[in-house]
Amino acid sequence: MTTNLPQNISTPTLLRLPSYLDVIHRAKNAGKTRLSSAEIGKELGYGSVQVRKDLASVSNAGKPRTGFDIYKLEDDIRDTLGFNEEKNAVLLGVGHLGRALMNYEGFRENGLHILAGFDVKPTHDSTLKDKVLTLNELEAFVAENVIDLAIICTPASEADRAAETIVNAGIKAIWNFAPTTLHVPDEIVVQNENIAESLGVLWYNMINKKHD
Amino acid sequence: MTTNLPQNISTPTLLRLPSYLDVIHRAKNAGKTRLSSAEIGKELGYGSVQVRKDLASVSNAGKPRTGFDIYKLEDDIRDTLGFNEEKNAVLLGVGHLGRALMNYEGFRENGLHILAGFDVKPTHDSTLKDKVLTLNELEAFVAENVIDLAIICTPASEADRAAETIVNAGIKAIWNFAPTTLHVPDEIVVQNENIAESLGVLWYNMINKKHD
Repeated sequence: MTTNLPQNISTPTLLRLPSYLDVIHRAKNAGKTRLSSAEIGKELGYGSVQVRKDLASVSNAGKPRTGFDIYKLEDDIRDTLGFNEEKNAVLLGVGHLGRALMNYEGFRENGLHILAGFDVKPTHDSTLKDKVLTLNELEAFVAENVIDLAIICTPASEADRAAETIVNAGIKAIWNFAPTTLHVPDEIVVQNENIAESLGVLWYNMINKKHD
Repeated sequence: MTTNLPQNISTPTLLRLPSYLDVIHRAKNAGKTRLSSAEIGKELGYGSVQVRKDLASVSNAGKPRTGFDIYKLEDDIRDTLGFNEEKNAVLLGVGHLGRALMNYEGFRENGLHILAGFDVKPTHDSTLKDKVLTLNELEAFVAENVIDLAIICTPASEADRAAETIVNAGIKAIWNFAPTTLHVPDEIVVQNENIAESLGVLWYNMINKKHD
């Protein structure tokens, strides 16, 4: 675990960082090695002051006249977001969404490994590459494996009970996909995922394009 | 369709708006009717200048000394994000993620209705509340129904072909969950969804809490 991670990066900046990775990825595919903050901003619709401020908080890959070394910048952003670290997770609630996440191909490049899913009843599902265990096996599984975080994919009504099981098993971080607010002790880090969030952006852009 | 929608709201502001809805929801549950920008900012970790700026761009529910009327503010935010509009969608790629979205309970309150799913082969799946048709039925389905947007949940390798089918059927907006960049004509509005985005926020907060 690196100790020279930058401190005090705001959540809005953290949430913008993956969009910079997308721009870098496209630039690399186009054979580029450097990008200016103006080029990056234009691609994303951010002002170049915003771009410079965001990126200065995570990297010193930018140079006054030549712009950013995108290979170094990519690595620094991935370090900040922990995408270069291997992380082990368990997942609670193996319904459709839980299955989708257990098989999601995008997680591997972010260093996330879901070691097992847990549900109220055991499932023998050949379409899942990972095993599904019953919830009362969680504590023993966590004792035997190094688990960094738990993912909650239960219905909203079951989410607090799942969180309690997770906390009792000694896991300190929860990624919550259930559409509800969890009640957990202060020392537990929770990140809520709201799949519908970017629907509003799509809708707004649709309306304003129609009005062009 | 309302014509008095605010113009020129930045994408970062749009992406923050749902977090304000969360705060309003919690305040309503606690029996409150008003919130100050300082209270909202404290809850979300945003500065109060940021809060005032974001909310002034979508609502005039804020008053100098008494703060925001949260019922009016909620309605204005929902209007901006289109959550008060009924929207019909089709979904392409009925794998695990597609099934999860077709059954996702959180979409209803955002006005989104997925009328049907489409896949290369028809599926008779009693766990899905909506029907699954074959891809070559899409064009006829779109001709018979008012469809506002299409959701792509195919593997990355199939996403461009799905987008082509969507565009040929006359749909102008795409919500893309496939982890790839689509190649579509300029007039098509695309919103990419990267499920892994907030994983970085969780990770960053874990590391910094450990170092406290």
